Amino acid sequence: MTEAHVAGFLADLLLILLSAKIFGEVAERLDQPAVLGELLGGVLLGFGLFSFFRPDDPALALMAQFGVVLLLFETGIHSDLSELVRVGPQSLAVAIVGVTLPFVLGWALMAALGHGGMQAVLVGSALTATSVGITARVLGDLGKLDLPEARIVLGAAVIDDILGIILLSTVEGASAAGVFSWLVVLRATALAVLFVAVALSLGPALSRGLVRQIPKLKVRGVLITAAVSFAFALALLAHAMGSALIVGAFTAGALLSQTDKKADIAGALKPLADVFVPVFFVMVGARVRLSAYNPLVPGNYPMLGLAAGLIVIAIAGKLASGLAVWRKGVNRLGIGVGMVPRGEVGLIFAQIGLAAGVLNDPLYAAVVAMVVATTFVAPPLLRRSFN
Amino acid sequence: MTEAHVAGFLADLLLILLSAKIFGEVAERLDQPAVLGELLGGVLLGFGLFSFFRPDDPALALMAQFGVVLLLFETGIHSDLSELVRVGPQSLAVAIVGVTLPFVLGWALMAALGHGGMQAVLVGSALTATSVGITARVLGDLGKLDLPEARIVLGAAVIDDILGIILLSTVEGASAAGVFSWLVVLRATALAVLFVAVALSLGPALSRGLVRQIPKLKVRGVLITAAVSFAFALALLAHAMGSALIVGAFTAGALLSQTDKKADIAGALKPLADVFVPVFFVMVGARVRLSAYNPLVPGNYPMLGLAAGLIVIAIAGKLASGLAVWRKGVNRLGIGVGMVPRGEVGLIFAQIGLAAGVLNDPLYAAVVAMVVATTFVAPPLLRRSFN
Repeated sequence: MTEAHVAGFLADLLLILLSAKIFGEVAERLDQPAVLGELLGGVLLGFGLFSFFRPDDPALALMAQFGVVLLLFETGIHSDLSELVRVGPQSLAVAIVGVTLPFVLGWALMAALGHGGMQAVLVGSALTATSVGITARVLGDLGKLDLPEARIVLGAAVIDDILGIILLSTVEGASAAGVFSWLVVLRATALAVLFVAVALSLGPALSRGLVRQIPKLKVRGVLITAAVSFAFALALLAHAMGSALIVGAFTAGALLSQTDKKADIAGALKPLADVFVPVFFVMVGARVRLSAYNPLVPGNYPMLGLAAGLIVIAIAGKLASGLAVWRKGVNRLGIGVGMVPRGEVGLIFAQIGLAAGVLNDPLYAAVVAMVVATTFVAPPLLRRSFN
Repeated sequence: MTEAHVAGFLADLLLILLSAKIFGEVAERLDQPAVLGELLGGVLLGFGLFSFFRPDDPALALMAQFGVVLLLFETGIHSDLSELVRVGPQSLAVAIVGVTLPFVLGWALMAALGHGGMQAVLVGSALTATSVGITARVLGDLGKLDLPEARIVLGAAVIDDILGIILLSTVEGASAAGVFSWLVVLRATALAVLFVAVALSLGPALSRGLVRQIPKLKVRGVLITAAVSFAFALALLAHAMGSALIVGAFTAGALLSQTDKKADIAGALKPLADVFVPVFFVMVGARVRLSAYNPLVPGNYPMLGLAAGLIVIAIAGKLASGLAVWRKGVNRLGIGVGMVPRGEVGLIFAQIGLAAGVLNDPLYAAVVAMVVATTFVAPPLLRRSFN
């Protein structure tokens, strides 16, 4: 490890952090989610703005994956499982419709266009995600978080996260196997469900026991070390069981969210996530070939047509999920709109597909366009629905 | 980047964090500095306790270097430059004697044993360090931080940090050049002094301006991102000027310590440092070949003899530095004892020497033994001197 190598890594990291924060800030000032800015920053870096930036550096790819593990761990910590139990059935109905409909429609569209097997499953899966963060943020800004609609949407988004995580691990398992078969998908689904179910039933005692030990230790940094160690251990356990690392990281977060150290852990995790999560989003953006979107190149038409179709399915499928609510006097359209933004989870699907070689560049570009479009239209539509 | 590769990285990181914290905790319960426990944990890992652990993985080596950059940045933030100005001259005298005497004695011992040139300079440099953290911690535990002796020691330790950083960059520059020449040493020293002087004179306006912008930004994680970006930028600037990355990181910390966000930045940096700094110490330990210390192997006698000589010089040289205080009625022995622990800075020298190929395994083992011994004897001696 030479000094020049370390300097190259720091330079790449500095460039990523600066572009993430500068474009994230611009996005927020335009009333858009910061993640859109981070993606755009990545697209510009990938475009070759800085000749020394190497988006295919394995150390950066590793840091991006480290960022995803932290992101899912943080998502788990902020997932309010007790809230989920309260709004339960209504949210479950919304989540199931909001996952099933986009998946089936997306899968059918892909199959109709001749992209069968694993490609159809992956694109269908990317359509199922809901970014709870973006909806929660917009509703919070409007002061509407106490409305029953908000509770139902956030509950459904948490269930979506869990279903999405299970799907992710399925897709990852099947992508790794190389060939598509329903048997592989079923096996991976069963493993992920088993892992989450066992962890959520046995885990609370374990995580509370862990948290009780923390104040007894004198050495510096016990809380954050214990928390990330717990996340890494569960991630590795999930991996060893044949499921995905992020399934374990999310589950670890969900378990710690039930302990009385939740706020302290979330606070200590934040600076780590602040530094490494943007690496993931910038790297996702950097892998987009901007030329794929050029409407003047006839060769791009199939991809642009596919992207348009995915965007329509993505919005319509989630809007329809609001109709699953049977409670009277509730703003069903508002609930559907709240489920629209795909955000980070959709991007994780796209990135897994690209890394496994299941998605080629045009398909990757179409999925990223779908994620960006849904994340982009959701905040203004939400404001309109709830004002 | 496959899932298995990411899992391997997480497993290594988990193992490092757990052994750092378990052995760190044991050390603290035995009234020893945690860093000794982290080193010991690393020695055991390097001994091959876990067959899947790969101490020569480049990703881990990179994280260890990332940890050193964060450590020096944090050291800079906690270096109280205004305190330094107050106790000024007395501390300066202690620091100069405490750097010069061990360096000259160590260099002479090495030269007398036939290890000339770069090796003698590197071992001499490793002898100059003072770990302010360990002394501050022990004096704090005793409630003696307000004594004039404590102020003089801590002031001298800060000056030592700055002199050590300059020496480090000199040694690094000369090691990279491959051959030893006083010209290279002089050039590297001049560059480091120039960098620190320019940064500390122009920097305060820059860092205060930076800190003033932070509350104006809305995007998440601005404070920690701005702080680490500033550290990386100054590290890269130092590197580009021909000095060392850590010189820039330390300087960035010292500059931010003068702003009114010092406490917030230190708080946000802590979880990052908690996770990555132990990687460095564990990796330093993991590179020690335990068999080098076996007293039953006659081939180890030269190294063990050298280690004993270095330990004597390390303790005697720093004890003598207390005599440089001219103020009356001051516990000169106590001040000398406070300067004895070498801690992290001594280890950074050892690691640079090993990485650059200047130190072979026996010399590395002797330097690490010297650092461990001085760090080990200081806390009980300090308690005896001040009680």
